[in-house]
Amino acid sequence: MMIDADRTPWPDVAAAFDRGAGLAVLPFGAFEQHGPHLPLGTDTATAAEVARRLAERLDAVLLPPVHYGDTWNTAGYRGTLSLSSATVTAIVVDLGRALARSGAGGLVVVNGDWGNRGPLYTATRLLLDEGVLPAITLDHPGMDAAIDEVRESRPAAAGLAHAEEIETSIMLRLAPDDVRTDRYGACYPAFPSDFGTRPMQLHPFSPSGVFGDPSPATADKGERLLDATVEGSMAVLADFVADVLRGRAEEAR
Amino acid sequence: MMIDADRTPWPDVAAAFDRGAGLAVLPFGAFEQHGPHLPLGTDTATAAEVARRLAERLDAVLLPPVHYGDTWNTAGYRGTLSLSSATVTAIVVDLGRALARSGAGGLVVVNGDWGNRGPLYTATRLLLDEGVLPAITLDHPGMDAAIDEVRESRPAAAGLAHAEEIETSIMLRLAPDDVRTDRYGACYPAFPSDFGTRPMQLHPFSPSGVFGDPSPATADKGERLLDATVEGSMAVLADFVADVLRGRAEEAR
Amino acid sequence: MMIDADRTPWPDVAAAFDRGAGLAVLPFGAFEQHGPHLPLGTDTATAAEVARRLAERLDAVLLPPVHYGDTWNTAGYRGTLSLSSATVTAIVVDLGRALARSGAGGLVVVNGDWGNRGPLYTATRLLLDEGVLPAITLDHPGMDAAIDEVRESRPAAAGLAHAEEIETSIMLRLAPDDVRTDRYGACYPAFPSDFGTRPMQLHPFSPSGVFGDPSPATADKGERLLDATVEGSMAVLADFVADVLRGRAEEAR
Amino acid sequence: MMIDADRTPWPDVAAAFDRGAGLAVLPFGAFEQHGPHLPLGTDTATAAEVARRLAERLDAVLLPPVHYGDTWNTAGYRGTLSLSSATVTAIVVDLGRALARSGAGGLVVVNGDWGNRGPLYTATRLLLDEGVLPAITLDHPGMDAAIDEVRESRPAAAGLAHAEEIETSIMLRLAPDDVRTDRYGACYPAFPSDFGTRPMQLHPFSPSGVFGDPSPATADKGERLLDATVEGSMAVLADFVADVLRGRAEEAR
Amino acid sequence: MMIDADRTPWPDVAAAFDRGAGLAVLPFGAFEQHGPHLPLGTDTATAAEVARRLAERLDAVLLPPVHYGDTWNTAGYRGTLSLSSATVTAIVVDLGRALARSGAGGLVVVNGDWGNRGPLYTATRLLLDEGVLPAITLDHPGMDAAIDEVRESRPAAAGLAHAEEIETSIMLRLAPDDVRTDRYGACYPAFPSDFGTRPMQLHPFSPSGVFGDPSPATADKGERLLDATVEGSMAVLADFVADVLRGRAEEAR
Amino acid sequence: MMIDADRTPWPDVAAAFDRGAGLAVLPFGAFEQHGPHLPLGTDTATAAEVARRLAERLDAVLLPPVHYGDTWNTAGYRGTLSLSSATVTAIVVDLGRALARSGAGGLVVVNGDWGNRGPLYTATRLLLDEGVLPAITLDHPGMDAAIDEVRESRPAAAGLAHAEEIETSIMLRLAPDDVRTDRYGACYPAFPSDFGTRPMQLHPFSPSGVFGDPSPATADKGERLLDATVEGSMAVLADFVADVLRGRAEEAR
Repeated sequence: MMIDADRTPWPDVAAAFDRGAGLAVLPFGAFEQHGPHLPLGTDTATAAEVARRLAERLDAVLLPPVHYGDTWNTAGYRGTLSLSSATVTAIVVDLGRALARSGAGGLVVVNGDWGNRGPLYTATRLLLDEGVLPAITLDHPGMDAAIDEVRESRPAAAGLAHAEEIETSIMLRLAPDDVRTDRYGACYPAFPSDFGTRPMQLHPFSPSGVFGDPSPATADKGERLLDATVEGSMAVLADFVADVLRGRAEEAR
Repeated sequence: MMIDADRTPWPDVAAAFDRGAGLAVLPFGAFEQHGPHLPLGTDTATAAEVARRLAERLDAVLLPPVHYGDTWNTAGYRGTLSLSSATVTAIVVDLGRALARSGAGGLVVVNGDWGNRGPLYTATRLLLDEGVLPAITLDHPGMDAAIDEVRESRPAAAGLAHAEEIETSIMLRLAPDDVRTDRYGACYPAFPSDFGTRPMQLHPFSPSGVFGDPSPATADKGERLLDATVEGSMAVLADFVADVLRGRAEEAR
Repeated sequence: MMIDADRTPWPDVAAAFDRGAGLAVLPFGAFEQHGPHLPLGTDTATAAEVARRLAERLDAVLLPPVHYGDTWNTAGYRGTLSLSSATVTAIVVDLGRALARSGAGGLVVVNGDWGNRGPLYTATRLLLDEGVLPAITLDHPGMDAAIDEVRESRPAAAGLAHAEEIETSIMLRLAPDDVRTDRYGACYPAFPSDFGTRPMQLHPFSPSGVFGDPSPATADKGERLLDATVEGSMAVLADFVADVLRGRAEEAR
Repeated sequence: MMIDADRTPWPDVAAAFDRGAGLAVLPFGAFEQHGPHLPLGTDTATAAEVARRLAERLDAVLLPPVHYGDTWNTAGYRGTLSLSSATVTAIVVDLGRALARSGAGGLVVVNGDWGNRGPLYTATRLLLDEGVLPAITLDHPGMDAAIDEVRESRPAAAGLAHAEEIETSIMLRLAPDDVRTDRYGACYPAFPSDFGTRPMQLHPFSPSGVFGDPSPATADKGERLLDATVEGSMAVLADFVADVLRGRAEEAR
Repeated sequence: MMIDADRTPWPDVAAAFDRGAGLAVLPFGAFEQHGPHLPLGTDTATAAEVARRLAERLDAVLLPPVHYGDTWNTAGYRGTLSLSSATVTAIVVDLGRALARSGAGGLVVVNGDWGNRGPLYTATRLLLDEGVLPAITLDHPGMDAAIDEVRESRPAAAGLAHAEEIETSIMLRLAPDDVRTDRYGACYPAFPSDFGTRPMQLHPFSPSGVFGDPSPATADKGERLLDATVEGSMAVLADFVADVLRGRAEEAR
Repeated sequence: MMIDADRTPWPDVAAAFDRGAGLAVLPFGAFEQHGPHLPLGTDTATAAEVARRLAERLDAVLLPPVHYGDTWNTAGYRGTLSLSSATVTAIVVDLGRALARSGAGGLVVVNGDWGNRGPLYTATRLLLDEGVLPAITLDHPGMDAAIDEVRESRPAAAGLAHAEEIETSIMLRLAPDDVRTDRYGACYPAFPSDFGTRPMQLHPFSPSGVFGDPSPATADKGERLLDATVEGSMAVLADFVADVLRGRAEEAR
């Protein structure tokens, strides 16, 4: 049974940390432009939903989301509010230390945005180096394979899925009222030879903020993407959970 | 008309930043023990509600809340997850810079927890020093006077209101389902002579985390406290808004 | 018997650290404008005098003062030399660590300026967190009540006492030769609604740097203010000293 | 005419910054063991006296001293209170910035301790790099030559003068009441081959903290040492002052 | 014509920065275990060779290599000497600033090790944000495709090439005398489900440090890998060079 | 027998760390203008050669050089690429920690440039403070005496040897092909009174970057300088090595 920690008194959360692996699941989102038809909180909504499903599967404590992330690439769009990499790292390191003091068994960060990957990796590495507590960041494992399955439109670039069919499908599933289907519009920019290698702001390439075509999106595709991500995450977490349980059993001896 | 930015596409938020003072309102909460009967998210819920009402009054952009704050004093309770002071400061500085790039006219931080006061002051001072954008932090102005009016129980110490009549009243108003009225219990610790002067962890003084008596709490008192805080905040903001409008008019010339 | 450490060889200071609570008292001043009639070292002189009296009462080691503090609010006046908050914190953290290595029982910081409050709180909290040594900052406890008693002139704002009757009285007591009584001049600025909430430089409000009216100042009032501050400080320190002695007794076992 | 800034109101200091080169002279001392016969404030007293004489010669503003420095080498003696290198640097950088805002023409730091050399060099280099204001640190130029002239006792190592004939002579001149002549005692340690190359704490080499022999000290030697240092400092400063005056003349055009 | 800057006087390097794109090429290596048969400098040697060939193709200035990198994953092997991520970033940021002051047109970092990717990305992003100079990091583009072509042995994990056929081939081409062919030994560890997701030290998985099988390595394969990397790098750089030239032409106007 | 670690597999380096004192020798160079006739890598070449000879004498592990240093004074010459002081310190601290983990007995840094002295001192002091491993920096001990013996030309200033007879002699010995003897040219600038005291860029004093006269340089003088430096270094290291051996013997017990 999952605990929604933000709505729960501390003794119940403490008790949950004492059960089984005692994991905390943290959705790490972003506040980032997603075209004229998707809300700024798209990445947070996605991470929060994956985190909620994982918390249920893991009998874990669901933490309230971090709504802001490192979205440097889209900082040129008005409305995107990006944290620095250092701040993203600091948030997770601070929470990791606090979770260890609170007796949690481990921390699973569900990352909703590409830009958080580097700083979140730095954070979990630091928590490992200092022996704070077992921590892992999930960058939507399993979603790429599901994308290949559901996708009908051409991607704007290999591996790029931003405010197009994929993300729109997910939001149609999660918050259809927040999707402005009347504003759909495709955009396929021409990228330079060093795109994906050299750090680059994205706004010169797409005035709308769309990269690809949202029009084939459906809520059903969204569900398939979310489901595959949860399954992929559970597969990755198998040995992580086992490792946490083993560590707790050793400590209990 | 208030804009709930997390659920809104970026062009609409950009348009809102161009209207009037173009303010953004950020609720800065905390994830902190509030006794056995109130949820860990109590401060966030309070700040979010005050921020929502202010955004409506100010025709402003409501930002999604920061759910974690500097709650050093209660870090000894399991479940409290405290950020460091530096991280709290960094979050607001980063968001302030991003809001300036996004064309917002100013930033109003609605602070939900005592522990955030120092780091938030540091952040707004830094935003002023660097000329980033006008920024102010509101520590629930007007609430103290309202507390004096509604309070029936004795405070645990002068100026201390934690998980007792006051905060419980607010949560009865905001989220009655999350208040465990069956767990009410008063606690009046004996404090040393340097309490309030020397930095001190609070858990040795109250095992439950309650400081005072929650039993006289009512939703009606909660509404009066919230209303007084919104009115107090609007009074403080009068010259701030005027200052932002004046600055924008000058820039437009 | 108080030890004036700056004029004393190290073995005598070491011996003093071994006696009783073995406290060190550090006056933390400021180099800040105090109108055309009071010297830049006003806050340092006040803190140094309070510290000297406390050291005598506590049989403690008096350290030489820090003459510079965080005086951001008055940095717009020529002559004010403000340290950054981080530097103020660093000085006390460094000294706290060095005192612990030197075998002192605890550190009492006597703070002479409002601007140092935040950074000094940060410092003592850090010394506590790292278990360096017991440390406390005193922000002139007891002085506010004495101000209410002696004050004849109206304050420029609630709780504001800068270069007016109160501070002038103290300097008439401590260093009458340094008070330019011929330059007295009152100033009562009009403050905006967010004064005291939003970080603000003070020089636009008073060209002279005076906030209130120095003319009713007397040396006798100054003595009453200092005496009340020393008494207030001793009252706050009662349990601090007891705590240090208990800790030393336990270590000795 | 020298201005003792700590005892002077701000408008008079501002006026002094407008006159001639408008220099500020900052004595940077240390709080460091100087054997059983010299006070902990020996380096500060020396720097303060040199600074006072220089301020008189330069018609400059004398700032109150910094009483603590980077005295890492003697931190193993109880009573030595050392700042970190970073803190020493930060103090001078902060003061340099504040002096520039206050309209000072330049900053002359009179350094009283060997350990401050590195961090003070870092500070003045940074002030130069950022174009804050002209700044220079004086490490008692001219004193070495004078030492060679007055010294009757053998030094403990080449270039080492700590709590022996030289420093004792200076204190006999500056504060004879604070010199415990009854405690004189020589100490000539055997140093390893990497002494002076490898960072090393000094307390293992001399239990008393004396390095050399204080007994031939006289106040007259002290005066000769101080006088030579002032003359040496003035010689070094000739082109510095000319440079500041040239810069001010250019700005005035 | 390529300039080997380490062996060249400064006026000739300055002249080279004035020619064409005026690029500097920096090989960023690592000092990391590569099994019992390859030298610790393997990554540096590879990066240096690719950089040399690129500098020739680009008529650029070849900088001397950085021999140490962020090799956190293999820090558990004795001999690996890893820099922190922050240090790797700082080196490139410092060099980027210095190159801009020296009049270089741009910086191409040839990265030799996986662990440097994050910190080098951070560095080039920072150089872009601050407008220092155009900078790009190349992580051996084109090599993966070449690996797929030449590889005869099975990889230890998807995308993992460490001290096996691939790297051994490169070293057989670059420094055959430094390859201990008598020590070849394959290692195919069993990895947990979170391998590649959770930060993990590698030494528990392979005592020798080999991941895969070095035995099918040949110098000819090494040449093909290097050649493909140079071609892949030139392809990525096409628009980068054009961008630098365009910027210089604009500045010249 | 010296180990050239960059060309050696890790198990052999690990074995070398287990033998005798198990020292690592790190040449720390610079990338700095040395006039029109000497290469930018002059300091690195010198440090690398001294380090190589020391490693042979000490049966130690020779690490690959750091090619960049803190060359702030000559950063005004195009081609000089200076690291910040903090980066120089960080590199050695990181390597010191990694060497300790690798089981090295101690670290000997051979410093090739004046500008690195401060930051390298900071690094070795920090490694000592944290008990990481014994570490020492050698600033070419013995070379000054040898300079006095071989020098035929007048120095540009006392203690200044840059791109003139001394450094040119060393490069004629180490890399005669890289010395442009056809470009020799003397330069004797007039220095201000605060030269050597106030931080100062050097390029205004010598357009060529030469300070002194390279023309009397010979390879034979270079060899005498290098040899004296190695002998001077060995003399300084005598007690350092003894100290490391004693520490290892104690640990082995």
